[in-house]
Amino acid sequence: MSEQKVNWFKLSLELHRKYIGKIEVVPKVPVTRLDDFAIWYTPGVAEPCRKIFREGKDLSFDYTCRWNYIAVVSDGTRILGLGDIGAEAGLPVMEGKALLFKYLGGVDAIPLVLATKDPDKFIEVVKILEPSFGGINLEDIASPKCFYILEKLREILEIPVWHDDQQGTALVTLAGLLNALKIVGKKLSEVKIALVGAGAAGLSIARYLIVAGANPKKMIAVDSKGILHPGRPDIDKLKETNPWKYKLAMKTNAEGRTGGIPEALEGADVLIAASRPGPGIIKKEWIRKMASDPVVFTEANPVPEIWPWEAKEAGAKVVATGRSDFPNQINNSLGFPAVFRGALTVRSKKITDGMCIAAAHALARYAEKKGIHEEYIIPTMEETEAFVEEAIAVAEKAMEEGVARKKLSRSELEHEVRELIYRSQKYMKLALEHGLIEPY
Amino acid sequence: MSEQKVNWFKLSLELHRKYIGKIEVVPKVPVTRLDDFAIWYTPGVAEPCRKIFREGKDLSFDYTCRWNYIAVVSDGTRILGLGDIGAEAGLPVMEGKALLFKYLGGVDAIPLVLATKDPDKFIEVVKILEPSFGGINLEDIASPKCFYILEKLREILEIPVWHDDQQGTALVTLAGLLNALKIVGKKLSEVKIALVGAGAAGLSIARYLIVAGANPKKMIAVDSKGILHPGRPDIDKLKETNPWKYKLAMKTNAEGRTGGIPEALEGADVLIAASRPGPGIIKKEWIRKMASDPVVFTEANPVPEIWPWEAKEAGAKVVATGRSDFPNQINNSLGFPAVFRGALTVRSKKITDGMCIAAAHALARYAEKKGIHEEYIIPTMEETEAFVEEAIAVAEKAMEEGVARKKLSRSELEHEVRELIYRSQKYMKLALEHGLIEPY
Repeated sequence: MSEQKVNWFKLSLELHRKYIGKIEVVPKVPVTRLDDFAIWYTPGVAEPCRKIFREGKDLSFDYTCRWNYIAVVSDGTRILGLGDIGAEAGLPVMEGKALLFKYLGGVDAIPLVLATKDPDKFIEVVKILEPSFGGINLEDIASPKCFYILEKLREILEIPVWHDDQQGTALVTLAGLLNALKIVGKKLSEVKIALVGAGAAGLSIARYLIVAGANPKKMIAVDSKGILHPGRPDIDKLKETNPWKYKLAMKTNAEGRTGGIPEALEGADVLIAASRPGPGIIKKEWIRKMASDPVVFTEANPVPEIWPWEAKEAGAKVVATGRSDFPNQINNSLGFPAVFRGALTVRSKKITDGMCIAAAHALARYAEKKGIHEEYIIPTMEETEAFVEEAIAVAEKAMEEGVARKKLSRSELEHEVRELIYRSQKYMKLALEHGLIEPY
Repeated sequence: MSEQKVNWFKLSLELHRKYIGKIEVVPKVPVTRLDDFAIWYTPGVAEPCRKIFREGKDLSFDYTCRWNYIAVVSDGTRILGLGDIGAEAGLPVMEGKALLFKYLGGVDAIPLVLATKDPDKFIEVVKILEPSFGGINLEDIASPKCFYILEKLREILEIPVWHDDQQGTALVTLAGLLNALKIVGKKLSEVKIALVGAGAAGLSIARYLIVAGANPKKMIAVDSKGILHPGRPDIDKLKETNPWKYKLAMKTNAEGRTGGIPEALEGADVLIAASRPGPGIIKKEWIRKMASDPVVFTEANPVPEIWPWEAKEAGAKVVATGRSDFPNQINNSLGFPAVFRGALTVRSKKITDGMCIAAAHALARYAEKKGIHEEYIIPTMEETEAFVEEAIAVAEKAMEEGVARKKLSRSELEHEVRELIYRSQKYMKLALEHGLIEPY
């Protein structure tokens, strides 16, 4: 058993106290004499203002930082596994996310935690903030209101909106699954998939698997009360309290199977669990009853629903988890930075399902080209070129689908994306060398 | 006549298009290996979250970037002299302001333009955003709603709120006036002051002059309809539409003078104009009727209400304007960066009137120590040490008045303030040397 030797909690607390903030704002333009402020501020700045006023709001993407700015927004109602701990206590996570956005995707992200738990107020505030940003990343919002917020904002905003706990997890899961199925020689449209967990991640994984070609009739989803099926006693209540789960119950599980996790796993080719920390949530004997060469994704953190070695002992052919210390990490950081990098570079109005699926395919293709095997189905965070490929795929899909405000050739796109993605690594090196950032 | 040789408007438009954004977000913590993300993000980040949740929201000032983050917020209703051009078109100004905040004060400022013109909605959104920030800078909001918004937010927020068009202008005007009066050998409590212009700046200058010791009975304010006095035909209407102006009308002008600008200037020791671009708003013959050694501040931009040489010809002893190309620039940039630097360094809950007045005195004192004369009554933006002194004065006043969350000794304060203020200059030098920022 691989145990963490570092106490990340203790170290993190100490270092958060030492640095007091993980990101800062710096100038992006030269200031070498006071006259420069006559360009960046009054009187000169009046001219770009007038230009945008006269020629249209979209010019704000050409004359301000807006094009590369996103907000990382949470109401603090579902921070990590900690639950509803409030806006202020959620801020360290939003800042961490902003750090990842910049470091991995060259995206300028602003952490915003909102002092409201009302989903309609949340939506209204984000709508009012829209002119300041090129995109919105929703984060750590309780389910099911997160579905409502995402749907509504995707409808009313003209900038990309993303809920990472939904789409991000789905994207990376799909990327991993595409390659896992190549290894076991099965097709997405044909496999039987058991989904354990029907929260933000589970429901969204189901949705994107279907968009990507999985057959909903062959999917069986399980929540804390058992297998979803149209005859469940709580099905009418679900229709009102969680229409997203209700819809999944109605379109999956064509054979009308009932029971719990073990029943869902019988004969399944694929298990995808995004439920609650294990071990022991999934048992070895249940894996043994899956189809031949089963694919097992157990994504709960910090401990997967079953330890990977146990899953392997029970016959799992390919195993993926959410952990960085095991092979095949289903890591959201492989998704959001490059997705936004691609979307922002072409000033996209949306992140469509097509763009999300294109990102998953790009990630899978990158790993495949390097040579996939049971312990390498998906790139790691260190493979920066995978991010470049993924961002390009997203941008190209945006242009193809007509949601991009800006058209770029493949080579322009590649140049811009690569420069922005590598810029942070360059910055970090310089900042450490010259004492702008102190080592810990 | 000194004319600008550079076309700032044209150059600014070109350079805004070239750089597309004046600020960016960068890491402030070391990232040298992937494991670092286990500190800054999951799993480690859960620990500072828990700490804040368990021990109180105020700990967010010790474990997140919040302590040094402010929002520069506008609704786009009064952008520069351009009027109500909307949120998107106002963004270049807010970004420019954010650049100044960082470059001059070491403050991380986020430009936020809001898609609402409703003052109550504005207030509500800022209140909801409160947990993300250590302070709020209001900017370019139409008068008189800006008074209402500022008052209300100062009341309901537990972080400093500042409307730069009000308090900023007042602070720097007061600083200049304190030294101008030393030169002419008069006392603030005794001088007759004529105020021309009763918008955001004018009303706020009046308010802070009174707080600083000026005698309201000896002040005469003029708006576009003439001298304010209790008998004006529109006085009852004013009470409803602009209670701030109404109150000024009721407490100033004890002698009940009527008429316009020339009548207001008769016998006045001081003229402070913050009205509309000149020249020709104030006439030489009116200055001639002021008291001996008159002090003339004409702050309209881009052209003062009267050219300084004309004011001098008419007998003005000390002249100040808003322009950088004349002596004695009343420049808001001398105020807001250091005021926030001081307030944020001690995690202040407010920017009290006392802190604002202390800032003005610190600025005046700095210039006085260097040696004031008719053409040097106030520091320039290049005098970085003036910002340090001012920030320290603000922080000390915050501690004295009991609004600071954090207590620092004079030497700790000086060290922290100086380090943050000089950090941006250091950054700029490095960024230019190493190609992170391209010269234009």
